[in-house]
Amino acid sequence: MNSGDTAWVLTSAALVLLMTPGLAFFYGGMVRSRGVLNMLMMSLGSIGVVGVLWVLFGYSAAFGTDLGGLGLLGNPAEFFGMSGLLGEDRLSDGIPTIAFAGFQAMFAILTVALISGAIADRARFGPWLLFAGLWAVVVYFPVAHWVFAFDSTDEAGGVTAVGGWIANRLAAIDFAGGTAVHINAGAAALALALVLGRRSSWPKDPGKPHNLPLVVLGAGLLWFGWFGFNGGSALAADTTAAVVLVNTLVATSAAMLGWLLVERFRDGHATTLGAVSGIVAGLVAITPACSSVTPLGAIAIGAITGAVCALAVSLKFRFRYDDSLDVVGVHLVGGLVGTLLVGFFASSSAPAGVDGLFYGGGLDQLWRQAVGAIAVLVYSFVLSLLLALLVKAVVGFRATEEAEAIGIDETEHAESAYHLAGGGRGTATTDEAQRRLEGSRA
Amino acid sequence: MNSGDTAWVLTSAALVLLMTPGLAFFYGGMVRSRGVLNMLMMSLGSIGVVGVLWVLFGYSAAFGTDLGGLGLLGNPAEFFGMSGLLGEDRLSDGIPTIAFAGFQAMFAILTVALISGAIADRARFGPWLLFAGLWAVVVYFPVAHWVFAFDSTDEAGGVTAVGGWIANRLAAIDFAGGTAVHINAGAAALALALVLGRRSSWPKDPGKPHNLPLVVLGAGLLWFGWFGFNGGSALAADTTAAVVLVNTLVATSAAMLGWLLVERFRDGHATTLGAVSGIVAGLVAITPACSSVTPLGAIAIGAITGAVCALAVSLKFRFRYDDSLDVVGVHLVGGLVGTLLVGFFASSSAPAGVDGLFYGGGLDQLWRQAVGAIAVLVYSFVLSLLLALLVKAVVGFRATEEAEAIGIDETEHAESAYHLAGGGRGTATTDEAQRRLEGSRA
Amino acid sequence: MNSGDTAWVLTSAALVLLMTPGLAFFYGGMVRSRGVLNMLMMSLGSIGVVGVLWVLFGYSAAFGTDLGGLGLLGNPAEFFGMSGLLGEDRLSDGIPTIAFAGFQAMFAILTVALISGAIADRARFGPWLLFAGLWAVVVYFPVAHWVFAFDSTDEAGGVTAVGGWIANRLAAIDFAGGTAVHINAGAAALALALVLGRRSSWPKDPGKPHNLPLVVLGAGLLWFGWFGFNGGSALAADTTAAVVLVNTLVATSAAMLGWLLVERFRDGHATTLGAVSGIVAGLVAITPACSSVTPLGAIAIGAITGAVCALAVSLKFRFRYDDSLDVVGVHLVGGLVGTLLVGFFASSSAPAGVDGLFYGGGLDQLWRQAVGAIAVLVYSFVLSLLLALLVKAVVGFRATEEAEAIGIDETEHAESAYHLAGGGRGTATTDEAQRRLEGSRA
Repeated sequence: MNSGDTAWVLTSAALVLLMTPGLAFFYGGMVRSRGVLNMLMMSLGSIGVVGVLWVLFGYSAAFGTDLGGLGLLGNPAEFFGMSGLLGEDRLSDGIPTIAFAGFQAMFAILTVALISGAIADRARFGPWLLFAGLWAVVVYFPVAHWVFAFDSTDEAGGVTAVGGWIANRLAAIDFAGGTAVHINAGAAALALALVLGRRSSWPKDPGKPHNLPLVVLGAGLLWFGWFGFNGGSALAADTTAAVVLVNTLVATSAAMLGWLLVERFRDGHATTLGAVSGIVAGLVAITPACSSVTPLGAIAIGAITGAVCALAVSLKFRFRYDDSLDVVGVHLVGGLVGTLLVGFFASSSAPAGVDGLFYGGGLDQLWRQAVGAIAVLVYSFVLSLLLALLVKAVVGFRATEEAEAIGIDETEHAESAYHLAGGGRGTATTDEAQRRLEGSRA
Repeated sequence: MNSGDTAWVLTSAALVLLMTPGLAFFYGGMVRSRGVLNMLMMSLGSIGVVGVLWVLFGYSAAFGTDLGGLGLLGNPAEFFGMSGLLGEDRLSDGIPTIAFAGFQAMFAILTVALISGAIADRARFGPWLLFAGLWAVVVYFPVAHWVFAFDSTDEAGGVTAVGGWIANRLAAIDFAGGTAVHINAGAAALALALVLGRRSSWPKDPGKPHNLPLVVLGAGLLWFGWFGFNGGSALAADTTAAVVLVNTLVATSAAMLGWLLVERFRDGHATTLGAVSGIVAGLVAITPACSSVTPLGAIAIGAITGAVCALAVSLKFRFRYDDSLDVVGVHLVGGLVGTLLVGFFASSSAPAGVDGLFYGGGLDQLWRQAVGAIAVLVYSFVLSLLLALLVKAVVGFRATEEAEAIGIDETEHAESAYHLAGGGRGTATTDEAQRRLEGSRA
Repeated sequence: MNSGDTAWVLTSAALVLLMTPGLAFFYGGMVRSRGVLNMLMMSLGSIGVVGVLWVLFGYSAAFGTDLGGLGLLGNPAEFFGMSGLLGEDRLSDGIPTIAFAGFQAMFAILTVALISGAIADRARFGPWLLFAGLWAVVVYFPVAHWVFAFDSTDEAGGVTAVGGWIANRLAAIDFAGGTAVHINAGAAALALALVLGRRSSWPKDPGKPHNLPLVVLGAGLLWFGWFGFNGGSALAADTTAAVVLVNTLVATSAAMLGWLLVERFRDGHATTLGAVSGIVAGLVAITPACSSVTPLGAIAIGAITGAVCALAVSLKFRFRYDDSLDVVGVHLVGGLVGTLLVGFFASSSAPAGVDGLFYGGGLDQLWRQAVGAIAVLVYSFVLSLLLALLVKAVVGFRATEEAEAIGIDETEHAESAYHLAGGGRGTATTDEAQRRLEGSRA
């Protein structure tokens, strides 16, 4: 048992848990004030539903011994309730297996929460929880198995437990989830945006972000937590984790600058919304690549992704899908760019030890990256579409047009986010100001 | 010296420090905008006063060698100023003693800050600081000794330094402070609410939370920090810490769902305030239990506590005490439920190795839990009542009724939290809008 | 390789990264609502520009082998792009060199961001990015070399690579950056405030903090992150790191109390702004001293600094420079006080093992502290003045007076921070309220 590696994985698990509230603020600040609570609740609800499912059988379905040996799904009964992991069971790396199970729980939670950005202002809360649970089971648990479950081997190198096909047979490089997390959530977001349809006010009046400092807070917490997301994926406090940390810093710096430059030349201004969007795009793109590129490669990947995603977020206007908070433009596109660029920028001097096209490795890694990316994209999109249609058919998914007009916080949660007036002595005046502030709800 | 264990305890100490600002936002967002600063200041003030007292003699009173051998109080002079802990002094676990002293400082600070939620909008700041210091000395330091100070033993098992009676003689299980922190603070909160009395507007107009995203931020930081609170209490980066982390995740997920279900069936809506209240209730309940139950047990404890606390927060309306932000309903009740449920759900397959009633262990652990809980409850309530009455008698505790009407931020701190207008060119218009926003203070 | 020490340094690096968003909120909450985004963007921009420069050659200029052996600058080509640090290269302490390089990246970023508080509401964004990059290269990288680059030695004690003159020849004690970070940024802030000049409304109408809870959030994140800033500077999870953590807690507690006491006696009220300013002043002052004083010494340094800085922030009114958010009063003054007080309060019982004047060490350490402090102050002030004048001459630095009146968020970033109305059905009313809220921008 290695206490240093364990300390790092436990710390990283806590960091990744914080990413889901971080995401909630990132998304919540971007919507109108009458929809922010619903946005927060979709993230919190993911922690509730997915947290419980993961402990019950999700970890087992993702990291249990492969059923049938094809690398498609782990045995969901093997570690049911994690009861068998309370003793000294440990990974070959010397950390307790249950530390790894807890760390990975946070990934499942976050991935589900990411999807919710596509359906701001119009999803009913109960059906969202239902979708979140179904999607975790049908899409995330298997895909996590494909990408993250490495074969177990004995000392002679013989395989003692088969893992997922992308990690082991295809050998695509996805260090911390460019495919399993970001392409996966991005494709599901597109499906959901299509099934739920556009907000009635969109694209005429998409609404301005109601609280940009809250968006920046979200981005800050995401970046902070992402050091655990990427760094903790080394499962050790070692050189790999340190290289990952530096790459996670500098790719993101470069992506922010890339996005701001596009804005500056296209629109004349560098915006706060652009800066934080560039940050998240950079974090997404470096996620699969952080162990396989040099810091200079990370700068290149970041800068490219920042610029590409700054352009990609306008796709929704051309194709007229209301991906409200750009989950497709940032997570799907950023995830694709990052996953594919591994095939170009991977350098054998980085911990993963693989050379991409630009470092003399030819096309070998690139096609593996492309196959992994496309497989996850297609599987997630198709299954997400079916699940969303199922939820829609059985319980209904979308709020009424009247609810949209009133504001979904009030109709779904019977609350409104802010009561900022009420600072003073004259309550009559105050109440009046409050009413004006909140429009005609009173 | 074990650097991995030390890294985890240092990290955990930082996480627990963050819980006090987290609590400040959790509480601050729930009050009206004219009282949020006072709410934040009561938490910040706890860090100031208790931080200094802990270093001077609090650590020593809690963890010094027992005075008289009855397990009631440590020797406050033994580690005065922590001067003797700057060398290589270390716990048997291999972490520097001063790392443990720093980690425990954060517990003392947080426990005092927790109390302040009961007296929103009406406590004068100076008397609060006085109460905070007195309460730390008279209530927290001894109770921490009872619960957290384990006997020191030599290699043959002989006791070399006697610790607290609950930890050693009674052998109640309280891993991270269900009694010492939550029941303790909750009982004090009840006493304080009784001594200060109801706000003049209560219960007619309790005020709506002025900033629910701020409340969610507080809950997110609390959850994040709680991984250090519970996980760090293992004092090692090992399997116990990892099991604790998983239990701290999943009990909380289940408690959130439990609270939301009660709301949904009782009121028709699942609210944001309910979700975050469920989160905190779950965290409270799993605090004593996180090392002694399986993840399935944690789910059960969480779900039960979420539902029970969702019902318990209405007690204050029946008994007509103005526990403004539900410190009693969440921390006292949640702490009691969690502490007692250890007696039912403890499983010897969990790290603590004890079986509760449901796992064939009979009533043995349950009565120990009950005695520990009741002892802390009674001691804290009685002493808190006396201290609050003392402060009231000597310097006065409560703000005037006029101050309540004006808003305590202005009368106690000469500030108001928000000046959100002022975005534009026309300062006349802006000032006018500002005045309207803030009522008639101008 | 020591995994526990590495875990702590990686965790600390993440903590210090979070300090820059924390600083952004601390600063952003203090300005008017029409300038908060620009304030946030100056901090985010520092992460972008300095993050990339650090990886390219900043680390090498600061920590590469000294050019010429005078201790003035490291070789910027030695570790260009950090390509040579991806293998098992490690510090003598047993942590990967690239972990140290990543940890130090966050210091460079934060130091640059600190400066921005002096020029709220009036700096154009592009020129700020230019200044940030130039200042990092010309001022921060060399000064970090002076203060933080220790000589490398072989086992016989022979110097194998020469480091900076303050760390090695002068032997001033600056554990985590009282000179290199705080005096450095504070002196630059003074220079920038002088070059950009006063806001047109200053000092008649300096503006009230528009969002004090946001300021408290910033202070909370700064304190949390500072445990990594100071604690991580031990480069090990050991007794030194633990002593540092306790000192970083208790000096800050005492400084908060010190500032509040001054306010209470001078103004009649203890304010939230005072509490958080005291917190930051305490953190600044203990930064150089945290490894060389006892916890009692830390309390003394904190209390003195809190009181001194509470008085120092009014210097700007006497000398009529518009240091908008008190970077001079808190970081320059606090950094000087902390650096000099090491000469008085250092105790050989603390990890650094040096006695100051009050512990029988005479004046030896005090003059070293004074020389280090003055050298950094003068170098930073002069070079910052020249760089600011250069930026002003070449591209212009200051926004127009009209932009100041409209609000710099709108003129520089084409955004406004808040759209809090829009909660209701009646969009006409809502839009009207919004317009009123935002003044006459419409």
